[in-house]
Amino acid sequence: MRRPLFFAVAGAFCAAASPVKLPTPADIVNAAPAAAWKGIPPDDLMIVDFANGRRIVIQLAPRFAPVHIANIKALARSDYWQGSSVYRVQDNYVAQWGQNDSKQPWPKAVTPKPPAEYFRSLAGLEITPLGFPDPYAPGSGFVDGWPVAYSAREGWVNLAHCYASVGVGRDLSPDTGTGGELYAVIGQAPRQLDRNIALVGRVVDGVDVLSSLPRGTEALGFYKDKSQALPIRSVRLASDMDPRGRPDYEVMDTDSTTFREYLRVRANRHDDFYIRPAGGVDLCNVQVPVRKKPGR
Amino acid sequence: MRRPLFFAVAGAFCAAASPVKLPTPADIVNAAPAAAWKGIPPDDLMIVDFANGRRIVIQLAPRFAPVHIANIKALARSDYWQGSSVYRVQDNYVAQWGQNDSKQPWPKAVTPKPPAEYFRSLAGLEITPLGFPDPYAPGSGFVDGWPVAYSAREGWVNLAHCYASVGVGRDLSPDTGTGGELYAVIGQAPRQLDRNIALVGRVVDGVDVLSSLPRGTEALGFYKDKSQALPIRSVRLASDMDPRGRPDYEVMDTDSTTFREYLRVRANRHDDFYIRPAGGVDLCNVQVPVRKKPGR
Repeated sequence: MRRPLFFAVAGAFCAAASPVKLPTPADIVNAAPAAAWKGIPPDDLMIVDFANGRRIVIQLAPRFAPVHIANIKALARSDYWQGSSVYRVQDNYVAQWGQNDSKQPWPKAVTPKPPAEYFRSLAGLEITPLGFPDPYAPGSGFVDGWPVAYSAREGWVNLAHCYASVGVGRDLSPDTGTGGELYAVIGQAPRQLDRNIALVGRVVDGVDVLSSLPRGTEALGFYKDKSQALPIRSVRLASDMDPRGRPDYEVMDTDSTTFREYLRVRANRHDDFYIRPAGGVDLCNVQVPVRKKPGR
Repeated sequence: MRRPLFFAVAGAFCAAASPVKLPTPADIVNAAPAAAWKGIPPDDLMIVDFANGRRIVIQLAPRFAPVHIANIKALARSDYWQGSSVYRVQDNYVAQWGQNDSKQPWPKAVTPKPPAEYFRSLAGLEITPLGFPDPYAPGSGFVDGWPVAYSAREGWVNLAHCYASVGVGRDLSPDTGTGGELYAVIGQAPRQLDRNIALVGRVVDGVDVLSSLPRGTEALGFYKDKSQALPIRSVRLASDMDPRGRPDYEVMDTDSTTFREYLRVRANRHDDFYIRPAGGVDLCNVQVPVRKKPGR
């Protein structure tokens, strides 16, 4: 009599044959040609394995925070995160991991006080505009697969804090963080952090490993009891793993016509479920498609 | 040497004494006069207790979806949800609960096919405008403590899908759902659902009980194994509980000058951590303050 309801049979998962049917976001992703996808270089893919057997995969964004990201790669290669854990989970905000109270020295290759790579110059970057207003910045859109905010007049662009974005924990300014403490967004986009902290990438697979953790009960979501922290077993770059078995992902090319079409239907949903397309979409609700490389 | 970082000592939690210090959102909430708060009527407060001993508290919004909410109250009073559970958890989207496959008949007081209460007339409502652009609607702001989107020209207003919003699961249109299957948002505001489904309220306490659940691995986040579902022990209205012990909450009055000041600083963060206030804020990132009534 009553069905599971709410999308249980929604159009996103049925390619119906009606001749007037308009494409859904899933239709566009499924039909995207190989040329609409760009592989993530293995040196920009960081794999974090946890003691509970689960894994997250992070794509790094070296064009936006090169010094912090060089640090993060050096830390991964030096086993800096051995014995570290996810020690803070604040609902509708962030999960954070690293060594926290450790007094471990930085490996030699690490720049202990990186510059404030919170935004960069627009020079040399092509932007695919979102096409809808953004409450946080004069402009927003996509660069190289990344959601960004920018000011054409002032000439800056920043990675935007969206769900699954990964950034570098820091203390009060002028500290910019070194890269040893990282956080991922697990709630409503905290865009107020844009241009106030260094974003370095995003979780492209497994973010639910973090978002489904118990929330910490101390201020800011720190776990009260250290035994609640989720231990990290290893952090590796895909480029340091056996090419035959390592993870391999592709991001939709945000300069492609396929992505422009995807953006259009994200703002105008025609899945069977929808009766009133919004005619707009938030930067962080576009959700640039990412997939495992076919055949992997 | 290295500190817990990222807000570990952030200003939101320290009322520093510097004479030039501008207020933070927390400062404003902490200093808000009693007149800036409005109690939630006990008949609009629904308490859901789970088998794991945890609880969520939902505020209902009868001015926006009266028939659906009358149904929900009738269902709570008839013990309709006995034996029900949270059976679907989709990352960055929703957690959904109810009877799902049950063939249980509707109690007599229930309207099985409510009208499409997806938005309502602006008539008689005072709006406190957000003051920043919204990608989903011509206008956005707050009515009676609720984040809303609206069109002054067309004369409609809808509750907005924000983190912790609660809505009524439905199948494809013209089905509007009856109220037996409810969902809460646990990710980036899915505003594309606005005006496509009936919102009935929000989780004002305990949303992390839902957001920290394991994600379902079937399509749309349904649990593969029914044993993964979180059983519901009881659903009650506060008005049916002993007044001496029942939950009691207050919402900041969004028509108050205190709220306008809160809104201003949410868009211009001056906590010690921030070096570059955004000058804007998203409707769903304002997060209207809610608290337990002092002394309860």
